[in-house]
Amino acid sequence: MGLYSGMHGLTAYVGFFEMSKPKKGEYVFVSSACGAIGQIVGQLAKIKGCYVVGSAGSDDKVNLLKTKFGFDDAFNYKKETDLEAALKRCFPEGIDIDFENVGGAMLDAVLPNMRLGGRITMCGMISQYHLERPEGVRNLMYIITKRLRMEGFVIFDSIAVYRQFEEEMAGYLREGKVTYLEDIVQGLDAAPAALIGIYNGLNVGKQLVSIA
Amino acid sequence: MGLYSGMHGLTAYVGFFEMSKPKKGEYVFVSSACGAIGQIVGQLAKIKGCYVVGSAGSDDKVNLLKTKFGFDDAFNYKKETDLEAALKRCFPEGIDIDFENVGGAMLDAVLPNMRLGGRITMCGMISQYHLERPEGVRNLMYIITKRLRMEGFVIFDSIAVYRQFEEEMAGYLREGKVTYLEDIVQGLDAAPAALIGIYNGLNVGKQLVSIA
Repeated sequence: MGLYSGMHGLTAYVGFFEMSKPKKGEYVFVSSACGAIGQIVGQLAKIKGCYVVGSAGSDDKVNLLKTKFGFDDAFNYKKETDLEAALKRCFPEGIDIDFENVGGAMLDAVLPNMRLGGRITMCGMISQYHLERPEGVRNLMYIITKRLRMEGFVIFDSIAVYRQFEEEMAGYLREGKVTYLEDIVQGLDAAPAALIGIYNGLNVGKQLVSIA
Repeated sequence: MGLYSGMHGLTAYVGFFEMSKPKKGEYVFVSSACGAIGQIVGQLAKIKGCYVVGSAGSDDKVNLLKTKFGFDDAFNYKKETDLEAALKRCFPEGIDIDFENVGGAMLDAVLPNMRLGGRITMCGMISQYHLERPEGVRNLMYIITKRLRMEGFVIFDSIAVYRQFEEEMAGYLREGKVTYLEDIVQGLDAAPAALIGIYNGLNVGKQLVSIA
């Protein structure tokens, strides 16, 4: 696992274990779950003994989540007309941990589905980066009524954890408990389309450009 | 201090000391600061050695905050055309702790003004309770970039702290370090108008109805 992928693994590791404070048996939701970070978060959640559901933007990715990455369930958010209802269907008992990579409408759908004392770990908001004016999130009242904690982090604050992460993750990789996929295109000419593809959800895992 | 006021004092005490984790010298913003809880939070912030600014809906209340309750500064949000700029003016260094009683547009203005590692303690969202559809909060990206923690609480979870709170607060009251105002109307006939007044910001402190 190269340094670049390593940074995404570290992000998943810190965001899940340190920020989200998971307990065995808890219900975990990962948005953009087929992305470089989401793939790993779901597998760490399984190692911890959690129930984990992911969302992704194609049936192929949903299939990957359930087969290759061992998610308990997954759904294609592009096929759902009501994200709040989709989460309710996947989590009849509610969500303890939301690992948030998407923001906007997805986050708004998560809030009413959270359980008392739940944690929302804010890792990214991919749905918002290309918007001139971000979408408004209307369901923040649930932060009070459900006693939620929503917390953001930036991985560069946690570089000190790298050695510990590396040792632990190397073990998981050796034991086959964690796997990952990268999306590699060939040549700089392919880079612009690959970049646009990220925002359209075409990549599976970290989008890399091979230039040699 | 009666039990009812005591519950508001306890809310301020738990919300400020336990949830917001204040450090001496930190910058604290309290919205709806002339309310039953806000009054106390501001005074606790001064006891802790913080710099505290409050918002309220009339010049009389702004004056009360600065004279009676010892806030370092205060502003009348109804007179500000740009809440984000008002906060920037009051907090050129940014906000470490936002004690949030208002939500909506006020919360949206707070987010870009938060400092790295700031805490947003979600106590109430008075601006939203009467809306059929809550306002959208657009600036949540700052939760990631500024590594913020936004956390909600409901005071009934913290009743066990009551004895400790009562002893500590009784000391502050005896020493004149904490004072409070209640808004008392006479007779049940006056109750409906008083209730409407709360949402129009007419009350100063806890609105009580005296029926005997």
